[in-house]
Amino acid sequence: MSPFRASAPLTEKWDHFDLHRADGVATVTLDRPDRLNALTFEAYADLRDLLLELPQRGDTRVLVLRGRGRGFCSGGDVDAIIGRTLEMAPDELLAFTRMTGEVVRAMRECPVPVIAGIQGIAAGAGSVLALASDFRVVARSARFAFLFTRVGLSGADMGAAYLLPRVVGLGHATKLLMLGDTIGAEEADRYGLVSELVPDEGLDAAVAALAVRLSEGPAFGYAQTKALLTRELDMGLSGALELEAMTQALLMKSADYAEFHAAFTGKRPPEWKGR
Amino acid sequence: MSPFRASAPLTEKWDHFDLHRADGVATVTLDRPDRLNALTFEAYADLRDLLLELPQRGDTRVLVLRGRGRGFCSGGDVDAIIGRTLEMAPDELLAFTRMTGEVVRAMRECPVPVIAGIQGIAAGAGSVLALASDFRVVARSARFAFLFTRVGLSGADMGAAYLLPRVVGLGHATKLLMLGDTIGAEEADRYGLVSELVPDEGLDAAVAALAVRLSEGPAFGYAQTKALLTRELDMGLSGALELEAMTQALLMKSADYAEFHAAFTGKRPPEWKGR
Amino acid sequence: MSPFRASAPLTEKWDHFDLHRADGVATVTLDRPDRLNALTFEAYADLRDLLLELPQRGDTRVLVLRGRGRGFCSGGDVDAIIGRTLEMAPDELLAFTRMTGEVVRAMRECPVPVIAGIQGIAAGAGSVLALASDFRVVARSARFAFLFTRVGLSGADMGAAYLLPRVVGLGHATKLLMLGDTIGAEEADRYGLVSELVPDEGLDAAVAALAVRLSEGPAFGYAQTKALLTRELDMGLSGALELEAMTQALLMKSADYAEFHAAFTGKRPPEWKGR
Repeated sequence: MSPFRASAPLTEKWDHFDLHRADGVATVTLDRPDRLNALTFEAYADLRDLLLELPQRGDTRVLVLRGRGRGFCSGGDVDAIIGRTLEMAPDELLAFTRMTGEVVRAMRECPVPVIAGIQGIAAGAGSVLALASDFRVVARSARFAFLFTRVGLSGADMGAAYLLPRVVGLGHATKLLMLGDTIGAEEADRYGLVSELVPDEGLDAAVAALAVRLSEGPAFGYAQTKALLTRELDMGLSGALELEAMTQALLMKSADYAEFHAAFTGKRPPEWKGR
Repeated sequence: MSPFRASAPLTEKWDHFDLHRADGVATVTLDRPDRLNALTFEAYADLRDLLLELPQRGDTRVLVLRGRGRGFCSGGDVDAIIGRTLEMAPDELLAFTRMTGEVVRAMRECPVPVIAGIQGIAAGAGSVLALASDFRVVARSARFAFLFTRVGLSGADMGAAYLLPRVVGLGHATKLLMLGDTIGAEEADRYGLVSELVPDEGLDAAVAALAVRLSEGPAFGYAQTKALLTRELDMGLSGALELEAMTQALLMKSADYAEFHAAFTGKRPPEWKGR
Repeated sequence: MSPFRASAPLTEKWDHFDLHRADGVATVTLDRPDRLNALTFEAYADLRDLLLELPQRGDTRVLVLRGRGRGFCSGGDVDAIIGRTLEMAPDELLAFTRMTGEVVRAMRECPVPVIAGIQGIAAGAGSVLALASDFRVVARSARFAFLFTRVGLSGADMGAAYLLPRVVGLGHATKLLMLGDTIGAEEADRYGLVSELVPDEGLDAAVAALAVRLSEGPAFGYAQTKALLTRELDMGLSGALELEAMTQALLMKSADYAEFHAAFTGKRPPEWKGR
């Protein structure tokens, strides 16, 4: 637990996805397989809140994001979200669209690495949840569709117009966000959207292996790597170099850095403490 | 027509390229095939002015950029531009180089999607016109040469040092802009510079198909996708997320968003109004 | 020599690498082959100082960075650096990490193009030296390992979290910096980290050919290309376009631009003066 909690309680029960915790790995499974795990207002809210709580709990080294059944996530539910937004006032709409952005912001600013394990379709908000993850372990059946223009909206949704050019370049991002076409796993891999491409039958094992590896590794180093990758997208070279210098000086005072040296000179594997 | 025109007239006749309008598609064809469509001062000025007028006319959904004959555009004319700049005073030179940048700025800030259809050579300013387009439909015969250093100038011309690293990454961009070498269509495709690679005999049809598709699609959504892709290259994550939230809230009040839902529930294709 | 030197002497002798100068090409060879050219505090300091002096000497058109023996550079020495940093006070650590960042900053801001010729391992700081170079000529035996998390530190070191996403995209950069895995030359090439991939027996010749080409080319144009590629990563589109307009207007007053036109009209190769 973070030493800096005070009155606010933590959430005991998450109603809008399945959450499993074991050995420092928290696995969120979107759990509406009959709707290809389409998101509801409540699922967004639970994702936002979980991501903000997670780093304060101190018991989670990795977050895994999965979808139950034959797809990852088909995005915002046509009935439960699109239908209802048509009735909303402007300030209600903005409260909703801001919440979706807050999920992405929390994913990027959360010090815990996030792995998306993706089979079948990742569409709309589902494709952005994948995009905002640190690692995309992708089955060959996976397909990505940033389909926002196809519902009459902007292809820039939940930070996609910020993140996607920084992952696949402006040319590919323009094509994907403007047209909203579905691409397969191999095309996504060619563009740089895939961290690890695996056969469908190997997806669970590949996700588990990466989760175990990250959960057993030097968590402080991972957290700072992610924090700086995220922030330095928005910084100039000079500020980035100073931030990295400060970060490494701090980590050179960490137990894990000393542990590396002791293990190396002792010819044994390091035992990471994550601090 | 934009409701916000007042006294200023629109240009009736463009003398320095061929302009064809049909069904919401404006096609600019650079038309000096004997010079591989080398640009003159006047061609730059006409491009700048057309791009600024286009969104105000309200009759154009897509801009297509082509070159007549065996090449796309060989860049600034050696006689009509390079020769004449050698005689110019510093303020005249700056007026010229600023104008070339204004063409690129107008291409990027124009809400209308721009498709470059490219056969043969795209060199110098021609390669930057291709780069600044939203879609590059590229024939296998196409070649790109950011050849500015080969005429004794900086490889950073018309925004190339800003745009190219954001399309192909800093490593490839350094090689292309520093050395000025010519690359073929397949190498360009490998780098991410190509939106669609087609056989030469299929170029016209591929350009037309994309233009028709964009002209019949949800224009407001396309315009905002392009606007945010362009602006968010220059923004931090937090501002980008807020901009996307505002944009989607606005578009959720658009006719096209309601039309999507009506068409989806009515099991019919949507009829986009572009507003 | 720069016209703007005054009292400060230049360094006569570099003790911590081998420096060879010939025909405008300065070649730094890291020269501890028995330690795979692991870096010491003094090697960092010499690199920083050389890079700051180089542009003032006026005799160097290209800097080549090599490692003697079977590897390029294995990064900070485990004994000479990691062991000693464990004893250091916070301000000493920051002085060290800042120095390493100053090497990268000087590499990026140095107007002289930098070529890294890489065989065998480029690990840790060695991989960042390669990353911060303008050109990476890479032998098939080469391997890259941004292994900082494996020593308990942040993967963001010496600007790697700034530079790597801008070279290979955020997805690949996250994988490389977070996990610290070793990748081979072909994977690095696929990600966009390689400027030129060559057989090992062709590495020396490929590096020499590129160095000669750059040393004989239009140095002022090269310098401004590099300067703007570096700065425009940190700029908005509008400022970048204005900077490029100013730059080209200045270079249109250069001898090399006039020389291009004279050579072109005279049907002879240009003789570049680099000014």
